[in-house]
Amino acid sequence: MVVSVHGTVHWSISHLRPIGLPSEILPSRLTSPKSNNRFYIEREFRLSEIPVFSNAKNYRQTATVPLVVPLVNPDHLNIIPTQRALQGLVRGFIVTNANCSTTGLVVPLHALEQAFGPIDKCMVTTMQAISGAGYPGIPSLDIFDNVVPYIADEEAKMEMEASKILGKIVDNDQAFDMRYSNPIVISAACNRVPVLEGHTECVSVRFVRRPPPSPARVAEVLGAYTCDVQAEGCPSAPAQCIMVHDDHDRPQPRLDRDFQFGAGVHVGRIRVCPVLDIKFVIMSNNVAIGAATSSIINAEYAVLKGFLDTPMPEEIMERA
Amino acid sequence: MVVSVHGTVHWSISHLRPIGLPSEILPSRLTSPKSNNRFYIEREFRLSEIPVFSNAKNYRQTATVPLVVPLVNPDHLNIIPTQRALQGLVRGFIVTNANCSTTGLVVPLHALEQAFGPIDKCMVTTMQAISGAGYPGIPSLDIFDNVVPYIADEEAKMEMEASKILGKIVDNDQAFDMRYSNPIVISAACNRVPVLEGHTECVSVRFVRRPPPSPARVAEVLGAYTCDVQAEGCPSAPAQCIMVHDDHDRPQPRLDRDFQFGAGVHVGRIRVCPVLDIKFVIMSNNVAIGAATSSIINAEYAVLKGFLDTPMPEEIMERA
Amino acid sequence: MVVSVHGTVHWSISHLRPIGLPSEILPSRLTSPKSNNRFYIEREFRLSEIPVFSNAKNYRQTATVPLVVPLVNPDHLNIIPTQRALQGLVRGFIVTNANCSTTGLVVPLHALEQAFGPIDKCMVTTMQAISGAGYPGIPSLDIFDNVVPYIADEEAKMEMEASKILGKIVDNDQAFDMRYSNPIVISAACNRVPVLEGHTECVSVRFVRRPPPSPARVAEVLGAYTCDVQAEGCPSAPAQCIMVHDDHDRPQPRLDRDFQFGAGVHVGRIRVCPVLDIKFVIMSNNVAIGAATSSIINAEYAVLKGFLDTPMPEEIMERA
Amino acid sequence: MVVSVHGTVHWSISHLRPIGLPSEILPSRLTSPKSNNRFYIEREFRLSEIPVFSNAKNYRQTATVPLVVPLVNPDHLNIIPTQRALQGLVRGFIVTNANCSTTGLVVPLHALEQAFGPIDKCMVTTMQAISGAGYPGIPSLDIFDNVVPYIADEEAKMEMEASKILGKIVDNDQAFDMRYSNPIVISAACNRVPVLEGHTECVSVRFVRRPPPSPARVAEVLGAYTCDVQAEGCPSAPAQCIMVHDDHDRPQPRLDRDFQFGAGVHVGRIRVCPVLDIKFVIMSNNVAIGAATSSIINAEYAVLKGFLDTPMPEEIMERA
Repeated sequence: MVVSVHGTVHWSISHLRPIGLPSEILPSRLTSPKSNNRFYIEREFRLSEIPVFSNAKNYRQTATVPLVVPLVNPDHLNIIPTQRALQGLVRGFIVTNANCSTTGLVVPLHALEQAFGPIDKCMVTTMQAISGAGYPGIPSLDIFDNVVPYIADEEAKMEMEASKILGKIVDNDQAFDMRYSNPIVISAACNRVPVLEGHTECVSVRFVRRPPPSPARVAEVLGAYTCDVQAEGCPSAPAQCIMVHDDHDRPQPRLDRDFQFGAGVHVGRIRVCPVLDIKFVIMSNNVAIGAATSSIINAEYAVLKGFLDTPMPEEIMERA
Repeated sequence: MVVSVHGTVHWSISHLRPIGLPSEILPSRLTSPKSNNRFYIEREFRLSEIPVFSNAKNYRQTATVPLVVPLVNPDHLNIIPTQRALQGLVRGFIVTNANCSTTGLVVPLHALEQAFGPIDKCMVTTMQAISGAGYPGIPSLDIFDNVVPYIADEEAKMEMEASKILGKIVDNDQAFDMRYSNPIVISAACNRVPVLEGHTECVSVRFVRRPPPSPARVAEVLGAYTCDVQAEGCPSAPAQCIMVHDDHDRPQPRLDRDFQFGAGVHVGRIRVCPVLDIKFVIMSNNVAIGAATSSIINAEYAVLKGFLDTPMPEEIMERA
Repeated sequence: MVVSVHGTVHWSISHLRPIGLPSEILPSRLTSPKSNNRFYIEREFRLSEIPVFSNAKNYRQTATVPLVVPLVNPDHLNIIPTQRALQGLVRGFIVTNANCSTTGLVVPLHALEQAFGPIDKCMVTTMQAISGAGYPGIPSLDIFDNVVPYIADEEAKMEMEASKILGKIVDNDQAFDMRYSNPIVISAACNRVPVLEGHTECVSVRFVRRPPPSPARVAEVLGAYTCDVQAEGCPSAPAQCIMVHDDHDRPQPRLDRDFQFGAGVHVGRIRVCPVLDIKFVIMSNNVAIGAATSSIINAEYAVLKGFLDTPMPEEIMERA
Repeated sequence: MVVSVHGTVHWSISHLRPIGLPSEILPSRLTSPKSNNRFYIEREFRLSEIPVFSNAKNYRQTATVPLVVPLVNPDHLNIIPTQRALQGLVRGFIVTNANCSTTGLVVPLHALEQAFGPIDKCMVTTMQAISGAGYPGIPSLDIFDNVVPYIADEEAKMEMEASKILGKIVDNDQAFDMRYSNPIVISAACNRVPVLEGHTECVSVRFVRRPPPSPARVAEVLGAYTCDVQAEGCPSAPAQCIMVHDDHDRPQPRLDRDFQFGAGVHVGRIRVCPVLDIKFVIMSNNVAIGAATSSIINAEYAVLKGFLDTPMPEEIMERA
């Protein structure tokens, strides 16, 4: 198995818990800065019947590749047999995890939808850390004492990825519904701020159901949220999925990003939005749950669910 | 006349143009950190028949005190005779200018309403500079490598002040309409970011009129916007009220805050909002147009309009 | 016992290893910002026969109070009986640890003197982190995008404290020699830089012995240095006193400050100084070994050496 | 004429005064990041009889190329006839200015030597701004919340360049004495700090003469220092060469770098050094007097002194 994690993780490694993966499994890092190369490398691995857990963007929108935020939709891994069949493979597959700013967003959105039914509108403004851009990433002259109100492709990624992640796997686990019947419209404004790690997002949502839930109920539901990767016992899953803050000035990236090795998501300032229904602040560690940690938990879940039990085909073994 | 500007201006002073104010007029600074003191000081000045242009918050919501963003509603100064009458004064008055984050917002909102009719909904997420908190203001340990997603009272200020500024002066210049008949609902999320000067705001608006204007029309209208303080020849008014940026990653506080000594407002990234109608990014210099410069231009406009022509009453002169 | 640690430790606490102190011992924090109060509090504790390990400056220059950097001179605790006798006490005493910038400096100086004999001249320029100033400490407006080339009293502290720490305890453990017979002249230039934690110091030294040691020998000696608190088994002592870096651009505060929970000292760029003999760069964690961690190790050492074995006198017990 | 200024100046341009250069003179920028290319370009310009004022390092140590800090040694331009003769040229020449950290240092050193005779030892520790590394320069991930205690080649540059600049032009203006008979030994420790513009340097010097001057005399001499480019009327020369600060915490880069468009040098904290004689703090604007502004003033001085009066040879004109 390959856990493919890109560029920026060189100091997030200390955030990762020792993972209890079987000994044949080697987390590895593809450092090619060119996504095209990555594209081919991941495809080659899969063709060689090697499962790939990718943090890269290339396959996220592919129809039979699951886009999995482990705290939200690990059941989307059930499309793997369909993906294998399409590629004529018995063991190889590709699983992707989401863009770092999407990941922080969809965890509370999913928890809220589970409790209160569909959200149909969501405004989100991000304040993203420089580590999100990889290394060497952003020149210091560009971001010191500054805000850059633009991150290439980031707003489109957030607006598209959410529909796949928050949608269902349907047709006997052969397709994703992409929220076609109950669309969730997301409007994102993405900014780079002079912070090392931790993406902060100001979010406002509208529920379909009238009246919408109160801030107190929202807080209660978010704090109580649990998910399958916890239930399944993934060793890198956080004990607390969503840390709900009472303090009026939290979460803050520098103070909260290392909690649970960055594997959970933080929510604070839950209050009424005069334009939509409810607004709040999200903070998630972009180099942990926003990147490598998601790949790791996805891999752990796949192992525990038996997706790696298929033996390597003999013809491949002979080649090697 | 007293131009009362608080705390943080110690380095904004270099941004101010030498102002061509009559020689009897002395811009002055009330540095009391306690707004209560300021409250009494400003009241005392007015009682002594001395016109006051205040950057403080105390009188902003008072019914007969104009809340004036000079690039938007200098005509609100016409309430001065009513204010004087109420206080039994012939020369003294108080004029306030808006909170720094409100100022940047209402300039483009006003330009858009002038061209396209009322806006009824507005979402705004701010990324505010540390100089907005005055001196000593924010401890470095709180804001280095961090975002603080809360600024005391700031969201309420933005939501309330906009209705007064964007409303009309009515009843023969004796009252403000406060947008009662065509309310503008503002939802603000205010954040402190590690930037020295320049507030950045991600804004999304909904127009009453259907269909809403296109991004291209919005850009055109904002760039062409002019205002009364320019027409009247106020020496500190900017030549360009709203600088519209074409570059996809502008405006940025460090690169744009010193343009025109910080007297104008910057807008960029004008695009369709999938949730409301149009979204864009605003950047304004919080220690120039967001503070002292507004007080100065208001004072200049008042002088040019004759509001300071009334001579000091003899009884006051005798006391002095 | 009281381990008195001031102001800034609120986030260093995560750097501290769980300490194996006897259960009667409670590390405590005196947060009074006024050193006068602290002065009296520490004196009162001592008068009540409670041992005090202080991170404050008040008693550092007192003749019978040991000034102990645990990686250098824990043997100075042997003056405790003399201190007790002078105060008419049987159990109480005060032990201080050094100023944060002194601590980083004296560890390598002591290691070098042990190997190569006395150093008589030392130039040091510091680049100190903002956390060294406590909370609220330095206003962000003063230190963002800036260097402040002055820290009140800091240069004098470094120049004075080094002579006490690097001197011997003499006269049958009744006095400190203060380097009177072989003075070490230190010239310090102290600067505040925009860094959260970790003081960097550029140091140049002159040895009395001719010829001086080579950079290679200096590196070898520093890397091999061990000390009494390690030998004695203090649980919070670092495994490696001095981490010597080969990379030409290390140590760096952000990358190296968390190594060993900040309990050791880092040295790099050891090279010939054309003016004195040898120059190098020191980096030490000002909120760990430069503050609380030193107090803790000093306390651990005192426990292990039996300085807390004296029972509380009955008259005190009765009072309580 | 070509004023060749590299990489980092894109925002220093606003610091430059409109220069009164003759209309045939076009300041130009060679942006090649590869110094080899620059090397050839500058040589080609000279071969084409075009005077070059370079901010690059390539020719600084060349025997007949003057290394000129305009506030110190513009008389070194007198070697131009020798340089031309050696190259078989009548009009072309190359003049270099110094490395940004050297420039700040040699101005006060020269002023002190003029008044008090030779300095033979100098220790300097720099805290250099990120703009000194050009664009894109230093990745934000490397320098945020950090100090990098190493800048490639910088210490050697400072130690070598000073001897050429502070030496005399000798042998009837045909050679530089390089301080061979009265060497000045400089020991430099160069650091990168998270500051945008303005290099701060902590300096300690030893005078040959005994007793050395007092801090008060040093302050007086530095503040009174004037130089030839002022006397000659160069339009970009600062009115005050050295701004001496009385405040104990100045100079500071953010507060002082824009004074006189960054064309002067700041000195503060003049005090006795217990190891050498006198220590002080220097701050100079690395993108103004430390780079482009020096090239400009050198060019202005050359024009005023007639070094550009030679007409372009006809053969070159015909080629063009």
